[in-house]
Amino acid sequence: MNKGAQTRETIIATALAAASTYGLEALSIGSLAKQVGMSKSGLFAHFASKEKLQLDVLGAAVRHFIDDVIAPALAEPRGEPRIRAFVDRWIRWSQAPYLPGGCVFLATANELDDRPGPLRDSLVAAQRDWIEALTTAARLAVEEGHFHRDLDTHQFAYELYSILLAHHHFDRLLRDPETEPRTRRAFERLIRSARPGSPSADLT
Amino acid sequence: MNKGAQTRETIIATALAAASTYGLEALSIGSLAKQVGMSKSGLFAHFASKEKLQLDVLGAAVRHFIDDVIAPALAEPRGEPRIRAFVDRWIRWSQAPYLPGGCVFLATANELDDRPGPLRDSLVAAQRDWIEALTTAARLAVEEGHFHRDLDTHQFAYELYSILLAHHHFDRLLRDPETEPRTRRAFERLIRSARPGSPSADLT
Repeated sequence: MNKGAQTRETIIATALAAASTYGLEALSIGSLAKQVGMSKSGLFAHFASKEKLQLDVLGAAVRHFIDDVIAPALAEPRGEPRIRAFVDRWIRWSQAPYLPGGCVFLATANELDDRPGPLRDSLVAAQRDWIEALTTAARLAVEEGHFHRDLDTHQFAYELYSILLAHHHFDRLLRDPETEPRTRRAFERLIRSARPGSPSADLT
Repeated sequence: MNKGAQTRETIIATALAAASTYGLEALSIGSLAKQVGMSKSGLFAHFASKEKLQLDVLGAAVRHFIDDVIAPALAEPRGEPRIRAFVDRWIRWSQAPYLPGGCVFLATANELDDRPGPLRDSLVAAQRDWIEALTTAARLAVEEGHFHRDLDTHQFAYELYSILLAHHHFDRLLRDPETEPRTRRAFERLIRSARPGSPSADLT
């Protein structure tokens, strides 16, 4: 990697950590330049605009997410083991050293949800891919016979993600020390309800 | 109400709508003054600082929440009916005309979660009160015999709130038209699992 590319990576990693903590809007070229020991104009030489930097930060987050959550889970056997891997990896991702403020997608969801534009589009695309991955994993679990045949896999993905959203909220805002055990218990209840012969199988 | 108090209310209502959409950090005294047709110094006469304005906005949101969610639900019979009322009222609150960007507590959760100070404290206190209200409602449902005796009421409240957090995320960020039916289905599954004789009763 040449020096320019290295500098660019350092800037993006620093900006990703800041975005995880304070959001994408609060990213400041000035304070970022100070953190990485560059001039503002030097930093601007790497990114044409603040929006370009923000987009690159989201892009870097997506690459981390694929490397640290999606890819390792896809290496697990189809069905329930893969779904468990998604959850374990997601929790680990939300505690990753490169994300001091937790999941950067959730840290920026509320600031972007009412701001149409390329940043919002990029976040929504990443979130849809993730929900799609969970839905597909649930469908494969049905095919493997781990989950019952009438399972609404979109509903399963919605409820699975709701458990992770609660993890973010209770951990980051409420600093609730019970967050992880509660997350795990909610997840086990969801898994049980999806198994063949589960009583909720008739009711969903 | 005298003119000063009326003006103050107008400023706070305008700021609450803006905070629901763009968060509390993005509140600008300048653009707020323009929206309500005042000078910046005129607006400052009502609020000693931006932080005081932000605190008053959160305070106004708490009052709305009590009037529109908590109080009407407490008027319903204890047990399952009251829990249903909490959910119905919360969904209605998230669509209230005074909150064009949805639940203002969730709209500001991520920007405040890593910023220690009175604003964060105020939001956390409001969220703890809400989760406490859900936990108490679950406890009363156990006492009424609507829910089984071994129910972990804190876990129930955690899972109930996770469904509402997903509602916010899927509705506001993903604009998913299936949000409300999915929320309702997840809620019904949770309620069924809490009832006496539910198979998950043995397992939790």
